[in-house]
Amino acid sequence: MAGDRDSHHAAASEFVAGGGLLHRRALLLGGAVATGGLALRSAVAVAAPGIALSIGEGQPETMRMPGAAFTEYGQPSRFESVKRSIRVRVPDLAPGTGVSLAPLQHLRGAITPNGLHFVRNHNGTPEIDPAKHELLIHGLVERPIVLDMNALMRYPMVSRLHFIECTGNSSMNGNILSEAPQVSVDIIHGLVSSAEWTGIPLSILLDEAGVRPAGRWVLAEGADAAGMSRSIPLKKCMDDAMIALYQNGERVRPEQGYPMRLLLPGFEGNMCVKWLRRLKVTADPTHTKDETSKYTDLLPDGKARQFTFAVGVKSVICNPAAGLEMQTPGFYEISGIAWSGHGRVTKVEISADGGKSWAEAALSQPDLPLAMRRFALPWKWDGQPSILMSRATDDKGNVQPTRTAWGAQYGAAQGYHCNAIQSWAINSDGRIRNVFA
Amino acid sequence: MAGDRDSHHAAASEFVAGGGLLHRRALLLGGAVATGGLALRSAVAVAAPGIALSIGEGQPETMRMPGAAFTEYGQPSRFESVKRSIRVRVPDLAPGTGVSLAPLQHLRGAITPNGLHFVRNHNGTPEIDPAKHELLIHGLVERPIVLDMNALMRYPMVSRLHFIECTGNSSMNGNILSEAPQVSVDIIHGLVSSAEWTGIPLSILLDEAGVRPAGRWVLAEGADAAGMSRSIPLKKCMDDAMIALYQNGERVRPEQGYPMRLLLPGFEGNMCVKWLRRLKVTADPTHTKDETSKYTDLLPDGKARQFTFAVGVKSVICNPAAGLEMQTPGFYEISGIAWSGHGRVTKVEISADGGKSWAEAALSQPDLPLAMRRFALPWKWDGQPSILMSRATDDKGNVQPTRTAWGAQYGAAQGYHCNAIQSWAINSDGRIRNVFA
Repeated sequence: MAGDRDSHHAAASEFVAGGGLLHRRALLLGGAVATGGLALRSAVAVAAPGIALSIGEGQPETMRMPGAAFTEYGQPSRFESVKRSIRVRVPDLAPGTGVSLAPLQHLRGAITPNGLHFVRNHNGTPEIDPAKHELLIHGLVERPIVLDMNALMRYPMVSRLHFIECTGNSSMNGNILSEAPQVSVDIIHGLVSSAEWTGIPLSILLDEAGVRPAGRWVLAEGADAAGMSRSIPLKKCMDDAMIALYQNGERVRPEQGYPMRLLLPGFEGNMCVKWLRRLKVTADPTHTKDETSKYTDLLPDGKARQFTFAVGVKSVICNPAAGLEMQTPGFYEISGIAWSGHGRVTKVEISADGGKSWAEAALSQPDLPLAMRRFALPWKWDGQPSILMSRATDDKGNVQPTRTAWGAQYGAAQGYHCNAIQSWAINSDGRIRNVFA
Repeated sequence: MAGDRDSHHAAASEFVAGGGLLHRRALLLGGAVATGGLALRSAVAVAAPGIALSIGEGQPETMRMPGAAFTEYGQPSRFESVKRSIRVRVPDLAPGTGVSLAPLQHLRGAITPNGLHFVRNHNGTPEIDPAKHELLIHGLVERPIVLDMNALMRYPMVSRLHFIECTGNSSMNGNILSEAPQVSVDIIHGLVSSAEWTGIPLSILLDEAGVRPAGRWVLAEGADAAGMSRSIPLKKCMDDAMIALYQNGERVRPEQGYPMRLLLPGFEGNMCVKWLRRLKVTADPTHTKDETSKYTDLLPDGKARQFTFAVGVKSVICNPAAGLEMQTPGFYEISGIAWSGHGRVTKVEISADGGKSWAEAALSQPDLPLAMRRFALPWKWDGQPSILMSRATDDKGNVQPTRTAWGAQYGAAQGYHCNAIQSWAINSDGRIRNVFA
């Protein structure tokens, strides 16, 4: 065993790719980095020689007076200022049309807390009294049905971890730009979030209504003032779609569709219709305003392609990233999130030299389909300019493309469905910039 | 394929145990229950014949006026009244000594939202300014170190799903009572919650400090006015202990130990010291007030046993459960949560006839060690009196005991570490009672 441990030390102290990338288990193998002479200790810890406190000694103020009483619903510390950024194009006329972005550079893990889940609204968050809300299932069915909340709450439910990504996420890095916008990581990529969703498999409700043989599509309509409406292939509705009623254990938040939203795992967020009020089984797509005037892909020949459902395999480094600054040279953990609308994320590679060499990051558990994963890799920054990139691969063999390869598939105005590799340039002065590398 | 589907129908419409329990995949196999003549449809859905709305027709009020603007930090709907119950013994003198219980009967899934995670405080929630907080590691180490938040944030982190259960959870069902208390499920069992925790593996910090050969235990001390202090075996600290900094993606809430707590996966909650300020490596247990006057197990011979670390395998049905009422007879989903401090939950069985017959419930993913799982099983309630029970098994072969078997291990006053099977009596009038079955 001692021999095993020593051999781990030797292996782990090696650099695994250019620019200072370390093995993904370097620090988990028992002080390997510190003993490898990489000065981790001096970078982060302050030696405290001779301290030998007993219980009761050296107490801070908080130990000398009773703390606050209990609360019925907890909130973050008042010392925490992590918030979603709001982007609204016409604040006076349409304050509810825009986005509220998840602060990716301040989150860790693969769950987004409910208060910080991204929001994309087309005409504000409706205030819906659940006692007055009903779900109608009609169209090409044997038995049209109406379900109120009391009825819905008696159905069987499933719980699953899934990300949701807005179709327009990362469009700031889209095709038409020649220079990379200098904004923080959340402003570019913050329209993706992750939660444990609990709800009723849609197949149960459709089976109960009895889909007629001619039914091939389902129109989903929201009860918001935008009347958000999208056409969904019947197969997806029967496979894994869910009427989501709970988000991370509690009832879905108003901004996420309270009292219920449609959840289509892996499909673009816009189709996961919030404030869901009806599902109409149809023979063909309805070609609603939301799937003709928007959410189509511009192709190189000038045509627009309708119906790109699953979002591409993707990753983004959130620490370090634009919106943060490097501190002193030395040890850092490169950390970020990865997801794929086609299946499981199986690999994330990181480069610290602009793509010349790559090393494999550690991936968090669980490893489930259409779920977000956190990746991480230790890094020793030498204080010199560096370009960080991450590249995800899924279990269907899809690999996250470079920006050039992604852009070549589309016309110049394309911004939707951008899953291109993000490059962060680290300046020697510690600034972090978005670059089209 | 058609033949397969028909055979699923036939199999799934069978009852799998007494009292009306249905197969765990009954409704997921395509309308099996409805076509099996169990009147699911009439129990929950209202037929809506002839409805054929187009987009824009029959719109609710919310579709005719813009909704609310974006928020920087979201909150639940104002129509939701789900809160934690607070129990404080001496409100005037010690408002911060007691519990705030997770409302289990209103949650779904296997994640507890941060606002509703249970709280057990011994002298209130301290308000800690992270800029002034430090973590000291000292005692039997080569290099005592002090880490401020800036230093800690540069260390490698891991993200893992883990439950935390208070040592005193379910003690209301403890040994000394002859009659079952008539309170709701959250009041009895609401001192358990689950989250994705992200933080620094404690082994990295201890390796950096350099544990001396004589070091076998670690004293953990909190910065609250109770000075919560517990002794932890060094092995646990090196195996999987974590300095938790994030809870479901955002910084740990004040009531959960902001700016940091110790997380010992599977160990009793009291040891997961909140507001952690120091770790002292020692040769022996420190025998603090919190591990001598409390949190010991009373044995039949009158002796008290110290140091029961891992909580037992356990499950509880949360729907239906005391605190809720049955509606009309017909279809219900029996749903609840299960966990084990010894490993993975591999099986949960449900009885609807007071333990005479059992059927296996479906378990949610992910299936990870020391993580909570949601279980569920369809049930047709015939309106007659019934007794519901759940029984969990883990991958170490531990099986949740009956209350009698659990009680036989302890003296009469024992309430800690109660993992006995919970029995809910369903009255024909729809009331649900706690019973010692």
